[in-house]
Amino acid sequence: MKPNGEDEEAPAGGPWEECFEAAVQLALRAGQEEEDTGYLGLKSLPGDHLSRAMIIRKALSEEKRVSTKTSAADLVTETDHLVEGLIISELQKRFPSHRFIAEEAAAAGAKCVLTPSPTWIVDPIDGTCNFVHRFPTVAVSIGFAVNQELEFGVIYHCTEERLYTGRRGRGAFCNGQRLRVSGETDISKALVLTEIGPKRDPATLKLFLSNMERLLHAKAHGVRVIGSSTLALCHLASGAADAYYQFGLHCWDLAAATVIIREAGGIVMDTSGGPLDLMSCRVVAAGTREMATLIAQALQTINYGRDDEK
Amino acid sequence: MKPNGEDEEAPAGGPWEECFEAAVQLALRAGQEEEDTGYLGLKSLPGDHLSRAMIIRKALSEEKRVSTKTSAADLVTETDHLVEGLIISELQKRFPSHRFIAEEAAAAGAKCVLTPSPTWIVDPIDGTCNFVHRFPTVAVSIGFAVNQELEFGVIYHCTEERLYTGRRGRGAFCNGQRLRVSGETDISKALVLTEIGPKRDPATLKLFLSNMERLLHAKAHGVRVIGSSTLALCHLASGAADAYYQFGLHCWDLAAATVIIREAGGIVMDTSGGPLDLMSCRVVAAGTREMATLIAQALQTINYGRDDEK
Repeated sequence: MKPNGEDEEAPAGGPWEECFEAAVQLALRAGQEEEDTGYLGLKSLPGDHLSRAMIIRKALSEEKRVSTKTSAADLVTETDHLVEGLIISELQKRFPSHRFIAEEAAAAGAKCVLTPSPTWIVDPIDGTCNFVHRFPTVAVSIGFAVNQELEFGVIYHCTEERLYTGRRGRGAFCNGQRLRVSGETDISKALVLTEIGPKRDPATLKLFLSNMERLLHAKAHGVRVIGSSTLALCHLASGAADAYYQFGLHCWDLAAATVIIREAGGIVMDTSGGPLDLMSCRVVAAGTREMATLIAQALQTINYGRDDEK
Repeated sequence: MKPNGEDEEAPAGGPWEECFEAAVQLALRAGQEEEDTGYLGLKSLPGDHLSRAMIIRKALSEEKRVSTKTSAADLVTETDHLVEGLIISELQKRFPSHRFIAEEAAAAGAKCVLTPSPTWIVDPIDGTCNFVHRFPTVAVSIGFAVNQELEFGVIYHCTEERLYTGRRGRGAFCNGQRLRVSGETDISKALVLTEIGPKRDPATLKLFLSNMERLLHAKAHGVRVIGSSTLALCHLASGAADAYYQFGLHCWDLAAATVIIREAGGIVMDTSGGPLDLMSCRVVAAGTREMATLIAQALQTINYGRDDEK
């Protein structure tokens, strides 16, 4: 889907305007609450709340209480739970008929099913392993779908104060600047992004490393692993990278970024080369269809099951 | 080497004060000149010069003129040359008896020999591949050695306006905040950083990937590859990562960062486990000696030769 506007800000209005504005407000609040834990050094927002002070105080404690989910590398902190709770409870108050898919609720057993109802798809902290280490690449991601079609995505890069937004048919922006993907079609001139994924058994690691080897043999300029799928996809949307692929990411890593990439002129597809399946735990994204297809052809599949069958 | 002060700013004065101040001024100017090319969105410094306007205009052109050095992945742009020229010519004017080791001069055939004379070790753009792609992880690195001992290091993260400094015996700082490394000693709780290196022949890639596999088998929380050795080492100094290793980096990637890490309480050593050899094109760095030793023991050597034998 190509952006259909020019370089001005997207026009206001539209059927989901109120929802979009709520997403922006909550992403900024949640992100800046993380900021206020002290490791990010940003300013406070006016209008503190008890819930906010609580998140800050807990996250400020020297040792984060970290739990593991599917593997020793799949981490979750109290801040993930608190931020997710803040976002979902605010949205439920304002939009009581809407449905929710959210990372920590899913980890606790909630089903991930995308029905035609208006549905929010939320990752409270993308890059939790980075967050645990205070490695400054951490984002809040809020996607919104209606009739199983993604309507908008809002991503806040907490440490760099970058707000990425995309709305179907209205373009993608970062802090008000229009985003456009790279037009690169040649792997040997490409910067490619990926993430390791949560499974770390020897067979999965072999496949992960073998996929990286194939791209480096194809003479990609470089492969980067930054620890946040969502922010890697934002770099792709901004043209700072030419391709992204991953096995083992979830619908909440992908939903918001997919709208942003499409509205920046890019392609998001299945690793088979077919259309994106948001629940399939795998993706290839690129600035051009040629690049996405070349990457998809180079990859061996790593099976992570489906989000809607867990 | 442990920091011997507390959390205040390092005291002024000392024998190389004027050199340190010059390094800070030039790193900011060079970095912000890159900023002004438009992809970084930062403010201009007062006092433009013809040379500066020239760098900006060239870097602003849509297509960067990119050349390759040792391999298709070892890139250099006109901006690398222009920034290096700016830094070296200013330093030569102010300190005519000093010696220089600098990335692009070395690529053009200048010898990299560290004598007892006061010597500047300069990387004008660390993360050139990132720079070419406008991937926002790019730094200017200026190190300074006397009697073959590193005296200070200054690194400017151009896109995030972070100035990292370290002076021997006076601590390490980022934008005035004292830096301290992580105290982690357990690989299974570690975030580890590395870079791919410029050689991309199949045997080198196999070793690179096999080293990454060994650390993931040891259950490191994660491995990150951000495309700038210098900035990865700064993350280590700030405690945002627990270890770093690389084969194929150069003395100009390492000189400034080594002072900063040591002054933040960390360890910089050879991949053999012995003392650092700045010219050996290989390094392990960590917050603790235990962690550095464990990483060194896990690695297979990739031979890149020596900077002082090229």
